[in-house]
Amino acid sequence: MEKRPQFLLALSAAAAAGVVAVAFVLRWVLHFREGLAWDGGPAEFNWHPVLIVIGFVVLQGIAIIVYRLPWTWQRSKLLMKFIHAGLNLLAFILAVISMVAVFDFHNFAKIPNMYSLHSWLGLAVVVLYGVQLVLGVGVYLVPVAPASWRAAFMPLHVYSGLLLFTSVIAVALMGITEKLIFGLSNPKYKDSPPEAVFVNVLGVLLVVFGGLILWIATRTSWKRPSDQVLHALHTNEGGEDNTKVGPALSQLSAGNDAESSADVRRRSNTLDDEAD
Amino acid sequence: MEKRPQFLLALSAAAAAGVVAVAFVLRWVLHFREGLAWDGGPAEFNWHPVLIVIGFVVLQGIAIIVYRLPWTWQRSKLLMKFIHAGLNLLAFILAVISMVAVFDFHNFAKIPNMYSLHSWLGLAVVVLYGVQLVLGVGVYLVPVAPASWRAAFMPLHVYSGLLLFTSVIAVALMGITEKLIFGLSNPKYKDSPPEAVFVNVLGVLLVVFGGLILWIATRTSWKRPSDQVLHALHTNEGGEDNTKVGPALSQLSAGNDAESSADVRRRSNTLDDEAD
Repeated sequence: MEKRPQFLLALSAAAAAGVVAVAFVLRWVLHFREGLAWDGGPAEFNWHPVLIVIGFVVLQGIAIIVYRLPWTWQRSKLLMKFIHAGLNLLAFILAVISMVAVFDFHNFAKIPNMYSLHSWLGLAVVVLYGVQLVLGVGVYLVPVAPASWRAAFMPLHVYSGLLLFTSVIAVALMGITEKLIFGLSNPKYKDSPPEAVFVNVLGVLLVVFGGLILWIATRTSWKRPSDQVLHALHTNEGGEDNTKVGPALSQLSAGNDAESSADVRRRSNTLDDEAD
Repeated sequence: MEKRPQFLLALSAAAAAGVVAVAFVLRWVLHFREGLAWDGGPAEFNWHPVLIVIGFVVLQGIAIIVYRLPWTWQRSKLLMKFIHAGLNLLAFILAVISMVAVFDFHNFAKIPNMYSLHSWLGLAVVVLYGVQLVLGVGVYLVPVAPASWRAAFMPLHVYSGLLLFTSVIAVALMGITEKLIFGLSNPKYKDSPPEAVFVNVLGVLLVVFGGLILWIATRTSWKRPSDQVLHALHTNEGGEDNTKVGPALSQLSAGNDAESSADVRRRSNTLDDEAD
């Protein structure tokens, strides 16, 4: 791996931001708020931020960069795919439970559901995340999709994954804003009591964590070597879609995409059972 | 360009989302709110969402994808750099004016400044956007930076640019949430009056616009052909940083990055004065 110390630095920083964010959300609900319970009251609501931060932010972040961890590169790609899918499935389940907690709390307190932009975007993200999960498993884990489908879908899979992760953090920041406005009454949010400052810092931690995960995920030189080798091989092939810019260019632009068709074809044929 | 109809479709959709978002924010402040003025009152505050949506979201989005527009590919790269920098400078100025409007309004109404997560992240984004602008001009427009600096800085410039754009949208969504909670009293936000639904839709439009700009910006096959040719040339060169994965791999991973050192070196030497 190129620049391995830089990778470990970025990974350590992301891990630190993730762990501190989880500690912050737990301290928020346990120290500043009503704790955790499943009773229809505010303590049930509190599962919402806790499960979102642990599952939908931190576990999803780990799932995104799991292929980048050098100590997994001797493991089979198929195993890593299962870990990637498993972490995303767990994150999805926690997100659904966290939503149930909010609906329960709202219904118990006779607060309307689904009126806010936070709820609109949050529900959309959970639904689209479920779609991404089903499509990801269907295309890359169940061995039925033709190689051409796997290839065609990969740029969209990568883009959607990163956009959904980013959107989760954006929706979490909106949720923090709502909760601090509604939850703080005397003193109010605008009076900056300790809870307000503390939870603002939680929001900053989520942004830092997200920024680091996106940095790690988008450094192509930090990719799993087998994926990089496939990229290298690919550029010695005849390109497809040689329309206007000539063969050499077409090869390159394809090679520059998140995953080219030849990559996926080869991987689906040979690398799922890569030596462990 | 590969898949030009798809590019035009994505561009048209982004343009439509941007135009409709601007129309929505204008209708919000002119029809549902107090209009626009510079009097320290709510109508001065209203410049904040208007200038953020027009400048910090839409103009910044255009600035990001300006190199992708096929009808600019016969223009010199230097001209396009000036347009890119100029649009970003304009977006920055509008963002600063929009912040002044909020501080004025807060001071006039004796509301504290800088207490909310929205204000913390918003100020951070504006400051970092200013830093990005200064560094971008200093490194890529003023002809003093060594080619090695230009090369080393490009992945960071691209990453920071996209992260700041994304953050602006996230902060805007938090701002919409705040304003709908504070601005709607009878009926309240939770009662879903027409203004609430209308402005929620504005938030969705901002997300759609952002998602489309990020899609366009991250399709390498939609890059300006001169940049793609440089990528193609680069893979026939000896690679740098040939550490563990062999020369071919190193070339590829460098070629896969947003901009490789050889690209930038060549561009800075020859392409700034590309035939117009």
